[in-house]
Amino acid sequence: MTAEIIDGKATAAELRQKVADVGAEFRQKTGRAPGLAVVLVGEHPPSAAYVRSKVKATLEAGLQSFEHKIPAETTTEELLALVDRLNADPAVDGILVQLPLPKHVDEQAVLTRVDPDKDVDGFHPVNVGRLSIGLEALVPCTPLGCLKLLQKYVGDLSGLEAVVIGRSNIVGKPMAQLLLEANCTVTIAHSRTRDLPEVVRRADIVVAAVGRPELVRGSWIKAGASVIDVGQERVEQPDGTRKLLGDVAYAEAAEVAGSITPVPGGVGPMTIACLLRNTAVAAHRREGLPDPEGL
Amino acid sequence: MTAEIIDGKATAAELRQKVADVGAEFRQKTGRAPGLAVVLVGEHPPSAAYVRSKVKATLEAGLQSFEHKIPAETTTEELLALVDRLNADPAVDGILVQLPLPKHVDEQAVLTRVDPDKDVDGFHPVNVGRLSIGLEALVPCTPLGCLKLLQKYVGDLSGLEAVVIGRSNIVGKPMAQLLLEANCTVTIAHSRTRDLPEVVRRADIVVAAVGRPELVRGSWIKAGASVIDVGQERVEQPDGTRKLLGDVAYAEAAEVAGSITPVPGGVGPMTIACLLRNTAVAAHRREGLPDPEGL
Ligand SMILES: NC(=O)c1ccc[n+]([C@@H]2O[C@H](COP(=O)([O-])OP(=O)(O)OC[C@H]3O[C@@H](n4cnc5c(N)ncnc54)[C@H](OP(=O)(O)O)[C@@H]3O)[C@@H](O)[C@H]2O)c1
Ligand SMILES: NC(=O)c1ccc[n+]([C@@H]2O[C@H](COP(=O)([O-])OP(=O)(O)OC[C@H]3O[C@@H](n4cnc5c(N)ncnc54)[C@H](OP(=O)(O)O)[C@@H]3O)[C@@H](O)[C@H]2O)c1
Repeated sequence: MTAEIIDGKATAAELRQKVADVGAEFRQKTGRAPGLAVVLVGEHPPSAAYVRSKVKATLEAGLQSFEHKIPAETTTEELLALVDRLNADPAVDGILVQLPLPKHVDEQAVLTRVDPDKDVDGFHPVNVGRLSIGLEALVPCTPLGCLKLLQKYVGDLSGLEAVVIGRSNIVGKPMAQLLLEANCTVTIAHSRTRDLPEVVRRADIVVAAVGRPELVRGSWIKAGASVIDVGQERVEQPDGTRKLLGDVAYAEAAEVAGSITPVPGGVGPMTIACLLRNTAVAAHRREGLPDPEGL
Repeated sequence: MTAEIIDGKATAAELRQKVADVGAEFRQKTGRAPGLAVVLVGEHPPSAAYVRSKVKATLEAGLQSFEHKIPAETTTEELLALVDRLNADPAVDGILVQLPLPKHVDEQAVLTRVDPDKDVDGFHPVNVGRLSIGLEALVPCTPLGCLKLLQKYVGDLSGLEAVVIGRSNIVGKPMAQLLLEANCTVTIAHSRTRDLPEVVRRADIVVAAVGRPELVRGSWIKAGASVIDVGQERVEQPDGTRKLLGDVAYAEAAEVAGSITPVPGGVGPMTIACLLRNTAVAAHRREGLPDPEGL
């Protein structure tokens, strides 16, 4: 078998177009575009690059972007005061504080200060709890993007065996919640899992969110399974260049799987598209409008 | 093999004694005993019976009990006003609103109104989220009781395969979170699970929280596994009497399992003991005291 390639780039482009359409309609109704505020503390180059692409995508979708670049020396109190101002600003529908924050900053205090209704990253305990209970929530972008890929390429997930490798708060745990909500039988594996190959072998759906390049081998994949590879690590090659690698040994897995995301071009583009999606949804809820359809 | 019987009654009695000791010490320090307010709306007889046993256990542990029995006709607004008063009352450390509430009451609104610091049932989205993220939280009593039984009878759970059957907000989901936090590889199964016997067969730890008497057969249990039976349903017997049955076919399972909870006398008594435990813990946190040890 040669797996169908799950095209995250194309799927993300569609979603971004939908956000643009919905945003234009929102602007007609309310006189303003949905607005996303991004806070970048310090100069961490990968973070700066992420923020640049988020801002670019925000503007391309016709949304309003508010960029706050502040020095690495900013104190927790100063950051909390900025969050308070953004919480109070009616033009701001979404607030994203780019992680990681400098070590001297109390990260949890900052994330918990964001108004849950503007928490487009879905990291606030209230949103985490609401997702778990099954109430309306803002859901972390990366697992939401993975779910959308599965819904498009697999369809109804009910009754399927899903294995999530990784239990981080930003990917693994919310991914497990979403798959459970979609009626999968969900297993969550991690570094203490005893026989990971055996656990993965029973999965109809594998989501790998580990950060260990090519950990998951082709021989671990059940024939026909759908494989979502969240991992993206830059790894130096013998020739000195650097290559972006996922958590799955792609060439091997693609021979066994039914469908699989490439790295790059799989989950990565969906994350930013879902950030825009969450911003548009948050804007509608804040204005008392029904959730936009098809997002 | 004949399974070791997991004695919930004895374990709960120990925990209640510890709460009594901790409560007495708290009283010496603060001049008051930890206080639990219980709200019962209407006359639903099983709810009334639960509330009676909770109040009895509270008083036996030397804690203060505040009982609020209010008519079935109470409106959501009136109930919210009562919750507000209890939130504001410094003598009240824990608030328990007995479920189910009458149909005309907005249950979620009431549960979300309880101060998360007094939410000894652990149902508030903030506590649900904090449990998921791994922050200090108040944890639902029944799954907490199950975890305590496992820790006592199995010890270190790290690396074990755990299967939770049932995904309710009050038992299954928080149970899965706690087992994950304890480093189990956790699978959560439910009514859409395709081959439940096969899923259960891989488990070192089985927690059944379904509400279907004797659903889980002995042939589903891996030799030596630990079985925690949360189910408790009153089932009419051929002779007309009613018997309390769990979700596990006890006699069959006890021949295969390494350890197993009986029904009654297993999980049931732990739930109330953990409610007292949560009340004592909430009282310490509210007074700025360190969490009592060994609870
Ligand atoms: N595409 C995107 O937009 C996007 C977004 C976010 C993250 N990512 C990528 O996804 C990957 C994971 O990110 P993260 O933030 O979730 O990472 P993380 O917080 O480091 O969590 C990694 C998880 O993997 C588990 N793990 C580590 N080694 C393992 C092993 N040998 N076997 C099984 N499990 C193992 C860890 O288990 P323990 O809990 O036991 O330590 C942990 O739960 C990274 O490559 C990251 O760059 C991509
Ligand atoms: N000992 C105690 O103190 C205590 C405390 C609480 C509850 N309980 C008892 O525990 C049991 C469960 O309570 P609950 O409140 O969690 O119940 P619940 O809210 O009704 O949830 C039952 C769960 O079981 C699943 N389920 C139903 N039929 C199934 C089947 N045939 N195969 C697999 N899964 C199935 C359901 O799946 P779906 O989600 O797909 O519908 C649901 O997730 C009850 O007997 C209750 O009395 C005891």
